[in-house]
Amino acid sequence: MRDLPRLGPIGDLDVSEWVGEPPDLDGQVVAIECFQMLCPGCVAHGLPQARKLAHTFGSDLVVLGLHTVFEHHEVTGPDALEVFLHEFGIHFPVAVDRQDDHTLPATMRRYGLEGTPTTLVIDKTGRLRFVHLGQVDDLALGVLLGQLLTEEPDGPPD
Amino acid sequence: MRDLPRLGPIGDLDVSEWVGEPPDLDGQVVAIECFQMLCPGCVAHGLPQARKLAHTFGSDLVVLGLHTVFEHHEVTGPDALEVFLHEFGIHFPVAVDRQDDHTLPATMRRYGLEGTPTTLVIDKTGRLRFVHLGQVDDLALGVLLGQLLTEEPDGPPD
Amino acid sequence: MRDLPRLGPIGDLDVSEWVGEPPDLDGQVVAIECFQMLCPGCVAHGLPQARKLAHTFGSDLVVLGLHTVFEHHEVTGPDALEVFLHEFGIHFPVAVDRQDDHTLPATMRRYGLEGTPTTLVIDKTGRLRFVHLGQVDDLALGVLLGQLLTEEPDGPPD
Amino acid sequence: MRDLPRLGPIGDLDVSEWVGEPPDLDGQVVAIECFQMLCPGCVAHGLPQARKLAHTFGSDLVVLGLHTVFEHHEVTGPDALEVFLHEFGIHFPVAVDRQDDHTLPATMRRYGLEGTPTTLVIDKTGRLRFVHLGQVDDLALGVLLGQLLTEEPDGPPD
Repeated sequence: MRDLPRLGPIGDLDVSEWVGEPPDLDGQVVAIECFQMLCPGCVAHGLPQARKLAHTFGSDLVVLGLHTVFEHHEVTGPDALEVFLHEFGIHFPVAVDRQDDHTLPATMRRYGLEGTPTTLVIDKTGRLRFVHLGQVDDLALGVLLGQLLTEEPDGPPD
Repeated sequence: MRDLPRLGPIGDLDVSEWVGEPPDLDGQVVAIECFQMLCPGCVAHGLPQARKLAHTFGSDLVVLGLHTVFEHHEVTGPDALEVFLHEFGIHFPVAVDRQDDHTLPATMRRYGLEGTPTTLVIDKTGRLRFVHLGQVDDLALGVLLGQLLTEEPDGPPD
Repeated sequence: MRDLPRLGPIGDLDVSEWVGEPPDLDGQVVAIECFQMLCPGCVAHGLPQARKLAHTFGSDLVVLGLHTVFEHHEVTGPDALEVFLHEFGIHFPVAVDRQDDHTLPATMRRYGLEGTPTTLVIDKTGRLRFVHLGQVDDLALGVLLGQLLTEEPDGPPD
Repeated sequence: MRDLPRLGPIGDLDVSEWVGEPPDLDGQVVAIECFQMLCPGCVAHGLPQARKLAHTFGSDLVVLGLHTVFEHHEVTGPDALEVFLHEFGIHFPVAVDRQDDHTLPATMRRYGLEGTPTTLVIDKTGRLRFVHLGQVDDLALGVLLGQLLTEEPDGPPD
């Protein structure tokens, strides 16, 4: 089976606020769905898949959203985001990527993300193992998560 | 074949503004997609079907959207709507249902609409012939439009 | 709206046997699904759509199948066909296109059909109005059937 | 994560013939799709998923079909099966479950299978770990395969 890359530690998420409780990521496999609320591919594919992950895995997987806004900030602020999450039935915690003086928000810049939706997966040791822009196949994502959940907590050697 | 009801003349749309050019409805079969920009069923079913109608029928059918906002007005105003239409590739004209002192906007009240998405179809004589809340099957909608497009311009007698 | 072609009278179907009662086509709009029981596109698209037509239209439309076998005759004979129809829940009448000394069976040759699935639609005057090899979109097929069901029984002039 | 059951060794498959080369199962994770060629759920879900597994995993997973015929034997014999496999693009090896004097063929009886499609998954040590009648979700199947592929070759202790 194809080895998953080890893309370095995820570190702290540089976010400005949370909708919901910030989860404890320590020792957990984590899936982060990076989205914008007015991005069609996020609404059609990325967020429904993240919701399915939360439903399928329960407490075995931390699922969280990251609102990585890089356009249309004026109509996608925290008030609009809260309505969106409510209407679209998204109950996992969602963080807002920090807007500073750059076009792209802080977390997008740190990981070199190129758009939305982007799915990130982090192993139990806090290392980034998967980054994908666009639709992710359910079978392929399941295999990857099955691998990371089965790895020993100290993971394979770098 | 089941006769379509004749629900009376549609009259003028009571709207506060248009995104795009207000179309000429005179003598035309018209499909109106009533939606809210943060309504999941509208994004998943109603608006994609309206876009498909516009693409399939070209100039034989007038397709228009009606933004019938009855909740979350504060984050779904004209600026947000324009961004939404741009991002979701909606190129047919969209009117904004008039907000007055009632909970429901003016056109929703006039036709007794109960939610979104609601699809309305109007015949060549300007009479409302179809009202449906929720997802409409493509085959059934096609049959209805094929009927109305084939009826003589003066339509069947009331 | 694009005029439908008038492809001449359908005449009698040249078939060797029927599973189910041969329907009366006189004065009826008729949809014929030409298929082979071991053709993937027929099983995935053509036959489910024909079943949906029968369910949607009831007595307003005659739906029938035509088993136009042009390969693998040895394993798709009448016994196999009956099991197939039973297992796949096909309850509309199915005729077997006549095998004679040619590679293609009789009805396929008469209408110049080039493969399966092929959908044929016939108007109330018995003229062929639509021939399509491959998947047919539900919306487009609905429009066509709505047109033909609304035309006066004597149809438009040739 | 929910532990997978350990359902005992799979042993030798009791089959009467193979279409394609019998694969070497030794030390491999194996997915077996039990099907009948005239079973709608097999054609719609089971076999397309097995084909997707073969395509996704390549040599990391052994995928094979098992034709577990328990009805309509007379029209689903080896000749019909070979045509079916060719037409439906199934290129992984397929075995024919042994017909003896019982209603159900030998492998179905041994594992207590109750119908088709049934998906079996076997770990690297030859133990049956998953048995499911009906449609299997891609995400759930991926997780399971990711787990089994990551387990040490000697597997977890019984």
